[in-house]
Amino acid sequence: MDISANIIKVRNAVIGGDEPCLCAPVVGEDVGQVLREAEEVCRKKPDLIEWRADFFRHIGDQERVLEVANELRRVAGDIPILFTIRSEREGGQPIPLDEEEKQQVMKVVCESGAVDLIDCELAYGERIADVRRTAHECGVRLIISSHHFDGTPSKEMLVDIMRRAEQGGADIAKVAVMPTSPEDVLVLLEATQQARRELSIPLITMSMGGLGAMTRLVGWLFGSAVTFAVGKQSSAPGQIPMEDVRAVLSVLQKYSR
Amino acid sequence: MDISANIIKVRNAVIGGDEPCLCAPVVGEDVGQVLREAEEVCRKKPDLIEWRADFFRHIGDQERVLEVANELRRVAGDIPILFTIRSEREGGQPIPLDEEEKQQVMKVVCESGAVDLIDCELAYGERIADVRRTAHECGVRLIISSHHFDGTPSKEMLVDIMRRAEQGGADIAKVAVMPTSPEDVLVLLEATQQARRELSIPLITMSMGGLGAMTRLVGWLFGSAVTFAVGKQSSAPGQIPMEDVRAVLSVLQKYSR
Repeated sequence: MDISANIIKVRNAVIGGDEPCLCAPVVGEDVGQVLREAEEVCRKKPDLIEWRADFFRHIGDQERVLEVANELRRVAGDIPILFTIRSEREGGQPIPLDEEEKQQVMKVVCESGAVDLIDCELAYGERIADVRRTAHECGVRLIISSHHFDGTPSKEMLVDIMRRAEQGGADIAKVAVMPTSPEDVLVLLEATQQARRELSIPLITMSMGGLGAMTRLVGWLFGSAVTFAVGKQSSAPGQIPMEDVRAVLSVLQKYSR
Repeated sequence: MDISANIIKVRNAVIGGDEPCLCAPVVGEDVGQVLREAEEVCRKKPDLIEWRADFFRHIGDQERVLEVANELRRVAGDIPILFTIRSEREGGQPIPLDEEEKQQVMKVVCESGAVDLIDCELAYGERIADVRRTAHECGVRLIISSHHFDGTPSKEMLVDIMRRAEQGGADIAKVAVMPTSPEDVLVLLEATQQARRELSIPLITMSMGGLGAMTRLVGWLFGSAVTFAVGKQSSAPGQIPMEDVRAVLSVLQKYSR
């Protein structure tokens, strides 16, 4: 196994290297909120920021979306930006766009050159190919993600989800699950470790909620390249403030060798 | 499953409750070293201290052992003292006592009333019954332990080891293993979680070395009631200073609900 094969570099961020990246979500509802939040979050120097555009009230207005994307680029400097419209089915906010309109927004955002990575759900199925084509034509990295708020699939299913993400052309595979027991938390870590051995793209995995919160701190030891941490506002259950994540990572990095 | 059944109280320490106990080893070689180290360690207020008497140069001199035990009692105040002569086979120091002499030392230390818990290795086999009898007659809690420096047994074997400790009359079962992969680290946590569900005594488990260091921080989430942390000097590979362990535990306790 060549672990170094699983590394990708996006601006200043090394994703899948020896150290986990911190990604802070930005969840503002209007232009001002998004930009103020991004400024505050970027001052804390996350490795990545994620614009969760499903929270943006004007997601249906392409002009405004592009305006915000371009402003975010300015605010973020060399911090890579991940653009995400999380579907309601997978834990996102309700938005007034159908699948085709949503994909159109994703396309123009990729073409704007303002973002570095884009999230696309494995559940999009055949539509993934179009997103991938646009993203890669624009030099945008593709995260193929899968979110399970109703439980934790088996280890085999989780590895298969990440395998399908890789087969679908993902630069990074992401899986988030909800545990109902400590055993579920370990299943997520085992699946991550197995996928790390089998696949050749970086992985992002987490077990959500309070029970799973520890995976946001130790997941990197088992191959999760990015941990989502709160800069200003949480975007999913169990996220921990960046400061606390950093305190724990610095201890783990000192002794986990 | 009634998790609360797995709690025992020793002086001020609640072992097996919602919060993990920190146990700091004391490994001095002579009377002065042991007492100075214990004073320094106790100032950091661990939940328990362990006198690793196999490090004590005069372990063959019962008078001096009792003298130190009584002085430790004074130094420790209400912090419970665990008395341990770790065998060389299980990671301890070489000592000039045969099994019978060692057991005699354990007996007089129990009878002294100076210590609260005593460690006895599962490998002692039939001799465990004598140690247990003496310990329990003296109101000393019995930890039956098993250390594997050459690898990580299977989950089933680990659970069986803890089961045999309980069957042998242990008040607490302890297992320490050496991982050779991240998978091994998860096996130790899985076994701990399974044993917690099956058994009715508190457990102490850890995966040693750098790879396993994270289990010293998160093991309590899976049922390990005590984590060994460095007060002044480490007694086993992978132990983390108490200050760092506390910093991580305080984050985990805030968010792991």
